[in-house]
Amino acid sequence: MSVGSLLILPGDGIGPEVMAEVRRIIDWYGEKRDLTFDVSEDLVGGAAYDKHGTPLTDATMDHAQEVDAVLLGAVGGPKYDDLDFSVKPERGLLRLRKEMDLFANLRPAQCFDALADFSSLKKDVVAGLDIMIVRELTSGIYFGEPRGIFEEGNERVGINTQRYTESEIDRVARSAFELAMKRDKKLCSMEKANVMESGILWREVVTEVAKDYPEVELSHMYADAGAMQLCRWPKQFDVIVTDNLFGDLLSDAAAMLTGSLGMLPSASLGTPMENGRPKALYEPVHGSAPDIAGQGKANPIACILSFAMALRYSFDLGEEADRLEAAIEQVLADGKRTADLLGEEGVTPVSTSGMGDAILEAL
Amino acid sequence: MSVGSLLILPGDGIGPEVMAEVRRIIDWYGEKRDLTFDVSEDLVGGAAYDKHGTPLTDATMDHAQEVDAVLLGAVGGPKYDDLDFSVKPERGLLRLRKEMDLFANLRPAQCFDALADFSSLKKDVVAGLDIMIVRELTSGIYFGEPRGIFEEGNERVGINTQRYTESEIDRVARSAFELAMKRDKKLCSMEKANVMESGILWREVVTEVAKDYPEVELSHMYADAGAMQLCRWPKQFDVIVTDNLFGDLLSDAAAMLTGSLGMLPSASLGTPMENGRPKALYEPVHGSAPDIAGQGKANPIACILSFAMALRYSFDLGEEADRLEAAIEQVLADGKRTADLLGEEGVTPVSTSGMGDAILEAL
Ligand SMILES: CC(C)[C@H](C(=O)O)[C@@H](O)C(=O)O
Ligand SMILES: CC(C)[C@H](C(=O)O)[C@@H](O)C(=O)O
Repeated sequence: MSVGSLLILPGDGIGPEVMAEVRRIIDWYGEKRDLTFDVSEDLVGGAAYDKHGTPLTDATMDHAQEVDAVLLGAVGGPKYDDLDFSVKPERGLLRLRKEMDLFANLRPAQCFDALADFSSLKKDVVAGLDIMIVRELTSGIYFGEPRGIFEEGNERVGINTQRYTESEIDRVARSAFELAMKRDKKLCSMEKANVMESGILWREVVTEVAKDYPEVELSHMYADAGAMQLCRWPKQFDVIVTDNLFGDLLSDAAAMLTGSLGMLPSASLGTPMENGRPKALYEPVHGSAPDIAGQGKANPIACILSFAMALRYSFDLGEEADRLEAAIEQVLADGKRTADLLGEEGVTPVSTSGMGDAILEAL
Repeated sequence: MSVGSLLILPGDGIGPEVMAEVRRIIDWYGEKRDLTFDVSEDLVGGAAYDKHGTPLTDATMDHAQEVDAVLLGAVGGPKYDDLDFSVKPERGLLRLRKEMDLFANLRPAQCFDALADFSSLKKDVVAGLDIMIVRELTSGIYFGEPRGIFEEGNERVGINTQRYTESEIDRVARSAFELAMKRDKKLCSMEKANVMESGILWREVVTEVAKDYPEVELSHMYADAGAMQLCRWPKQFDVIVTDNLFGDLLSDAAAMLTGSLGMLPSASLGTPMENGRPKALYEPVHGSAPDIAGQGKANPIACILSFAMALRYSFDLGEEADRLEAAIEQVLADGKRTADLLGEEGVTPVSTSGMGDAILEAL
């Protein structure tokens, strides 16, 4: 049975390696569960630039608009540091987010039991941690105009613009409230309303949306205090909603705190397409890790869990997602560890593909 | 001997309580060391709003421009949450920073040995930690125009502008390199040059300034990766330089990680005045903590250490600063702890003024 179409964009660095393991999982679903995906693969980021002189061709962009889900590895690397801003690898990813209008970026920060020792935080601070950060992804200072480097008098000035409309805030707030309803019904919104007018509007709109979700306990926190509280006692949070830039920093910090960075997936969702499925892109939270690329050291789990999120959110295959996640828990409980997770006693080191083997076996 | 003039602005919340202890220390210097300060005191923040309808009067602003150093407690509190943006307590502090042109905000993130257990991080990750974050304080999105909430079509839009000129980046970078020269000669600059043009200019200018400091090892990091690395292994850093908004989040996170938040001072420095002393404002990193205000629970040490920084940077009394810092170490080693630092075995709880007593005794 064909369940839908999937565009795979491995990207740069460890992207292709971890994605190769996802492909094996996808094949397994076709062979063993009769769930076949109409898979295509293309280039993004530095890889696309190397071939086409642009980090995302129009053809790839068009294709991404048509599929049920995009699965992305990672983009970027020092090789591209000196490229002009307009063709940097990141622009490919940002164009996908923007043109697909993927406004809600779901970033779970979850501590896997078997890995709690890996956190730089004390075990009781992180064990069992499970929070969800909802980051606005298509607006704010990432995309606001005017932007650029301009001459002014005798010198240059660098300008970027934070811009949020009420409707942009409204829709991402609704996504966050919906998620909170399915979880512990607690939502914390973070901005700098004490310093930024865009933060004031943010707080106002979120407070307004809250009226439609009377069961959810809403709180507000300045983003700097939020950064502190995430470091101090992250378990105080359930769902966090915040803007594009604060979300970038806060979700990365939260992911690192779990000790499970190589394990964390993300989903970026837009509005429903004609077939009712939301526009969607899935990617691991970790970056392209150019320093370990091509050495079989990368942990494919974050990317595989991103595929699990696709099963759940795009293909309505929640049970299959559960199955895949359970297989991964199993493998971790058995002590299999990629290079990023070594250090404990009594674990078995495995390579990127060794981890893929183990997960397939557990499936 | 009169060593210079000091304007004390206790502000809101626990500000007045912790400042009362500083005044006792100042008196001690006059009586026992013949070092007298020409001290005046005034209102800022909510306290100023309550009396004058503005978080900082012009008269206070003028006075701040004339003194050798300003010592501030903290501003803000829920009581003022619904005030119009233009008269919020924070505007008083921001006006001081801007009009005094205090472009370099020095925020040490230091872990006090006696308090390493207080961190949510594992002891080996934080014990002995000593980094310095230099945050640009007078520009960026805190002050850029246009800003505000505007009508656009049928809805409102919140706008803030990140703006950095080359000379603004140059001068704060130089402060950071100077500090690095006096420390471990390592500087890490953080921005989002992969996403923001203002970050590209930031990176370019810092790289240019580095030519004047060939002994300092300069690195660059994206701010989200910086947030991660601060959480993972903060000891990799010596001095960090970053912009106003990133500095707000990153320095707060770093301060919290040390476990010594109630202990951390900060200095905000501008250009030299006629007498050769820099324009300067000193304040604790912690906020106004309205929840514990007036209960004798506040830790006055961050504010007292801010005065120690004033001794060092404004009054050229480095040895006296050392003496004061040593007295504080002594008191901690003796096991005296304010309410924020209780929990260990064998320590002696003290009130805010009890901590002041102990420090005076150690002096
Ligand atoms: C690669 C980069 C453009 C991106 C961002 O800043 O959003 C990344 O840090 C992320 O968080 O997905
Ligand atoms: C009180 C507030 C305006 C201030 C800031 O955002 O700069 C505070 O968070 C700080 O870091 O000093």
